[in-house]
Amino acid sequence: MVDVAVVGGAGYIGGELLRMLIPHPDVTVVAATSDRLAGRRVDGNHPTLRGHTDLTYAPHDRLPDCDVLLLAAPGAAMSDAVRARVNAGAVLIDIGPELRLADPATYRRYYGGEHPSPELAAVAVPGLPELHRAALTKADTIAVPGCMATAAILALQPLAAAGLIGPDVLVDGRIGSSGSGSQAGEVNQHAERAGVLRVFAPSGHRHEAEIAQATGLSVRMGATGVDAVRGAQVLCRVTPADGLTELDIRTAYRARYADEPFVRVIAQRRGNYRLPEPKILLGTNYCDVGFSFDAAHGELVLIAALDNLGKGGAGNAVQCLNVRMGLPERRGLEFLGLHPI
Amino acid sequence: MVDVAVVGGAGYIGGELLRMLIPHPDVTVVAATSDRLAGRRVDGNHPTLRGHTDLTYAPHDRLPDCDVLLLAAPGAAMSDAVRARVNAGAVLIDIGPELRLADPATYRRYYGGEHPSPELAAVAVPGLPELHRAALTKADTIAVPGCMATAAILALQPLAAAGLIGPDVLVDGRIGSSGSGSQAGEVNQHAERAGVLRVFAPSGHRHEAEIAQATGLSVRMGATGVDAVRGAQVLCRVTPADGLTELDIRTAYRARYADEPFVRVIAQRRGNYRLPEPKILLGTNYCDVGFSFDAAHGELVLIAALDNLGKGGAGNAVQCLNVRMGLPERRGLEFLGLHPI
Amino acid sequence: MVDVAVVGGAGYIGGELLRMLIPHPDVTVVAATSDRLAGRRVDGNHPTLRGHTDLTYAPHDRLPDCDVLLLAAPGAAMSDAVRARVNAGAVLIDIGPELRLADPATYRRYYGGEHPSPELAAVAVPGLPELHRAALTKADTIAVPGCMATAAILALQPLAAAGLIGPDVLVDGRIGSSGSGSQAGEVNQHAERAGVLRVFAPSGHRHEAEIAQATGLSVRMGATGVDAVRGAQVLCRVTPADGLTELDIRTAYRARYADEPFVRVIAQRRGNYRLPEPKILLGTNYCDVGFSFDAAHGELVLIAALDNLGKGGAGNAVQCLNVRMGLPERRGLEFLGLHPI
Amino acid sequence: MVDVAVVGGAGYIGGELLRMLIPHPDVTVVAATSDRLAGRRVDGNHPTLRGHTDLTYAPHDRLPDCDVLLLAAPGAAMSDAVRARVNAGAVLIDIGPELRLADPATYRRYYGGEHPSPELAAVAVPGLPELHRAALTKADTIAVPGCMATAAILALQPLAAAGLIGPDVLVDGRIGSSGSGSQAGEVNQHAERAGVLRVFAPSGHRHEAEIAQATGLSVRMGATGVDAVRGAQVLCRVTPADGLTELDIRTAYRARYADEPFVRVIAQRRGNYRLPEPKILLGTNYCDVGFSFDAAHGELVLIAALDNLGKGGAGNAVQCLNVRMGLPERRGLEFLGLHPI
Repeated sequence: MVDVAVVGGAGYIGGELLRMLIPHPDVTVVAATSDRLAGRRVDGNHPTLRGHTDLTYAPHDRLPDCDVLLLAAPGAAMSDAVRARVNAGAVLIDIGPELRLADPATYRRYYGGEHPSPELAAVAVPGLPELHRAALTKADTIAVPGCMATAAILALQPLAAAGLIGPDVLVDGRIGSSGSGSQAGEVNQHAERAGVLRVFAPSGHRHEAEIAQATGLSVRMGATGVDAVRGAQVLCRVTPADGLTELDIRTAYRARYADEPFVRVIAQRRGNYRLPEPKILLGTNYCDVGFSFDAAHGELVLIAALDNLGKGGAGNAVQCLNVRMGLPERRGLEFLGLHPI
Repeated sequence: MVDVAVVGGAGYIGGELLRMLIPHPDVTVVAATSDRLAGRRVDGNHPTLRGHTDLTYAPHDRLPDCDVLLLAAPGAAMSDAVRARVNAGAVLIDIGPELRLADPATYRRYYGGEHPSPELAAVAVPGLPELHRAALTKADTIAVPGCMATAAILALQPLAAAGLIGPDVLVDGRIGSSGSGSQAGEVNQHAERAGVLRVFAPSGHRHEAEIAQATGLSVRMGATGVDAVRGAQVLCRVTPADGLTELDIRTAYRARYADEPFVRVIAQRRGNYRLPEPKILLGTNYCDVGFSFDAAHGELVLIAALDNLGKGGAGNAVQCLNVRMGLPERRGLEFLGLHPI
Repeated sequence: MVDVAVVGGAGYIGGELLRMLIPHPDVTVVAATSDRLAGRRVDGNHPTLRGHTDLTYAPHDRLPDCDVLLLAAPGAAMSDAVRARVNAGAVLIDIGPELRLADPATYRRYYGGEHPSPELAAVAVPGLPELHRAALTKADTIAVPGCMATAAILALQPLAAAGLIGPDVLVDGRIGSSGSGSQAGEVNQHAERAGVLRVFAPSGHRHEAEIAQATGLSVRMGATGVDAVRGAQVLCRVTPADGLTELDIRTAYRARYADEPFVRVIAQRRGNYRLPEPKILLGTNYCDVGFSFDAAHGELVLIAALDNLGKGGAGNAVQCLNVRMGLPERRGLEFLGLHPI
Repeated sequence: MVDVAVVGGAGYIGGELLRMLIPHPDVTVVAATSDRLAGRRVDGNHPTLRGHTDLTYAPHDRLPDCDVLLLAAPGAAMSDAVRARVNAGAVLIDIGPELRLADPATYRRYYGGEHPSPELAAVAVPGLPELHRAALTKADTIAVPGCMATAAILALQPLAAAGLIGPDVLVDGRIGSSGSGSQAGEVNQHAERAGVLRVFAPSGHRHEAEIAQATGLSVRMGATGVDAVRGAQVLCRVTPADGLTELDIRTAYRARYADEPFVRVIAQRRGNYRLPEPKILLGTNYCDVGFSFDAAHGELVLIAALDNLGKGGAGNAVQCLNVRMGLPERRGLEFLGLHPI
């Protein structure tokens, strides 16, 4: 059994980690931390856990001995309690943004201020098994990418690496309200957030940096909040290489993802779900990747969808944990998703 | 021109009042108050007013001279600033709950604590033109009823007054998220509030008291929050009098509401909208009233729907203002509603 | 391995059965039938199955040899193809309405016309393990109850059986759009169905008969379509027995459901999810049961929630299959549900 | 009074026209046609008209004498009945797509097949008062542009005409389900359409042609169906001219739209509604236009939002009618919109 502590267990990512890990047959959740809710039952604010655990929140500074730390709280990677556990040998899997960017200057540009721990960011392995599986099997520090970044990287990387697309990409991201976390505020009040098409980032979205780092492309990205709780989708507009055919694209994707348990290539002729649609991925660890290629006009659009709390966050972190600890990679992530929903 | 001040202009009822009154041809909005937003433009947090006003919020204690005070802030009726204006002759139309219940003991039971101003509650005329039009033409203090209470009263009163139903009624209310006001909080966060069927009052809802006071019936009421921003609906289960026919019910409703500009009787044989449905009433001042009568089994259900911010609040208040000030009753309330929406 | 055929595999219940059974470790899906889609892949209209099956639809009259027939098409139980399989020894689990009511006169009242097979209905065991587990272990014909009926029965039966409530109950059901099936039509068009509070059955809902049959109570029931795809909730208003206490109710429920894997008793003092809420049950096989008791005013409301395609249909059918075939009862039904969603 | 006939009155655009024209003080609706519903009341399928009209549908070939024909049915402009009325002097305002494109080759590329009436398309004046007000005052044939095209044209044209942007634009459109009309079908079924991010046109959307024709730009456009009934939004990514400043953009827009009654420039520093958001425009005739300019990285995004049935269809047609018939331009279009909603 792998002993796991969830740091920042009270938020939406924390809750999703607990939903996946509490029934995980090879994992024991030894702690979930929350200063605000310390002493309260975790099924109090995560009602889907009712009947499945008697766990209560521990304060952040009371981290027990464990094999893996899953961090779902901003800045947690740099806290004393976490550092102590890491020094004692715990593997660290961080779902927050701090360790994702290896270059401190890029961090400054997108997050403002100095990087809190450039040395830690320098050694972190990106938590994307599709690109870094081998390194993840022995990584001590893993930095899970952002939700829309994950989708965009999985759509872009195979074609970029194969030289099938030009160096520039325009990413249009769409995301549900759980992407802003579980903190209440006017921005996320139901009456304000329902029915929106809120262009919260017309350009310059932070995930540009992660996508560029992973693909080597020059990335421009905007994002819109849409009327959904979960779900994220990216449209990536790229320039096809000369002479590119649809078959080339299918071949490149299939070669890349044929053995991947959580990436599916979806590009059909017809049907409501002919292209990746987050609606049918809620609760899953899938990233569906598809594309539309109008060869006559040279327009190639790569599309990817996922659940921002699943493959875009907690699910991906659990997949990394499985890879790192030598567990079957699908373990705890078997849910197929719901249709209709 | 009637000079009107909106006390508590920054909330959802306040915004709806401004939306109706700023284009009202016989009204001048001389002030909208908000302590929190004092000095800021009213179209800042009420974006539909953009291009229609340059008004800024005044603090609550800076109420200018005016003919009518519309109160959309809890406790405002008892504030010094409002009392001063009332003493100077302003008509008071209160949309808050304090003045709705004439009996202090009933107030205590439903709101807890002593009534802040029993003498004011004793003289307030209920702000429901369908029942109190004559009194409203000369009322100094008007207490607009609660949103679900308005719907239930308009469904029940004609049949109760005609002796067509028994003395007991069970009311099942359903309401959108704007009914809890514009204050942010976990209870109304989008990710928690979307898709709910939240039985926030299984029984004992406060509007029991208002409905009982208006109809003389013995009322039990529960309520559920549903996935909508606006809209309220009540189902009122009553006992039909012996020998009652569907024609009796239609006749009673039509006699009562034939000349009412804002109550429509909706009880059709077929169609998606054969019974009152709040979806098509958003933004209007209508209360649609209908019923279903299964004579064979003695089951009579009265149904009413409205926009909780419209006929259930701000719209009804504007109708009262029109009645009180001798203006055409429909003025400022002409919107027909949207379908589809 | 148990060989299972899904008759009527193309609808929403059919799709949910396939989602649960295809990964079920003790089951092989030997056929899914659909005349309309015969020859087409089942993951064509059930996109969550992509990557998990290569199954194609068979026509209804081509049922292969199998151990269990799961029927998700109206009237299927009486079809020649099904009868032939049953005669060859297959167990029949019907999710349609025909076999639920043992009394032909009751069937006539609620469905109109003569019962298509009273002798079959007479021998069918109700597909509710919580009430009929022993009988289900050797039943040849199982009739899974309706979605809202299941919820109401699970809320009512423990208290009715213990004599804690009076003989009359008023049930108020609320249900999402998937409850009307996957056939397109104006009634379910997005622009008409979004945002509704559609009182499609003010009284006399068909599930009255099933609830009465299971509980011995006199049942009146109405139902409203709400803005959700999945999910059902019932409020059951009953009369408490003299001297009833909250503890009596908790004790009765806990005694009844302590060992049930899929019924949880939810009745907390506070929180957004203090009472059963379908929102957090989507995709699960849980029925959450709770209550609100206002002893001072004698008001007792029992509340239950489930996913109409889960415990209200396909999930319950799979649970019956597990019970009947001697498999672990939770097998294939482990999903905990999502929060937020 | 202007006598108006609505051809194709039973659809969503038809219903919206009737909602605006029935209360219009200068207009008499002399007919609404529908072959399918001939003889039925128009408030039967347009429930917001209840209490406001006794009109019934006429068959398409029974068009009475009238001053203006508003066409909301595909191909209606070419029908014999319409031609007869036009020959008798009626002004034709077409909301369908056939007369929008002046160039038959472009029509062929985007719609397939030969243009049904190139001579009619050649003389039609585009129904966009902001660009063609003078011509509209005497036009006999008016072609109202598509909903997303209207939004994009109003965002792009002022900057394109002033030479402030480069020749290429990428348009990303988002639209609610009413944009596909009132015909039921699986594509628009609630359970399939709720919660979607359906990329129905990754590239090559038909409105490309209209936008190019109106602005002279080279246009690429994709579109996504989102979870809304009404509302459309476009993001237009353009290249800023050398040395362009934010002030230049504001100045260009304000110069162009200062006197326009239905275009508002929305580009604020903060707030949930700092950029154009269709949510607050439902039922209105506004097109809100805004922009985001990141000068440092040369990224300029123009954003526009409207109600696809309002300024994107019926509302715009009524505005054209007002202009053409010499009526006050805002008449019948005064609704401010709702917030929250």
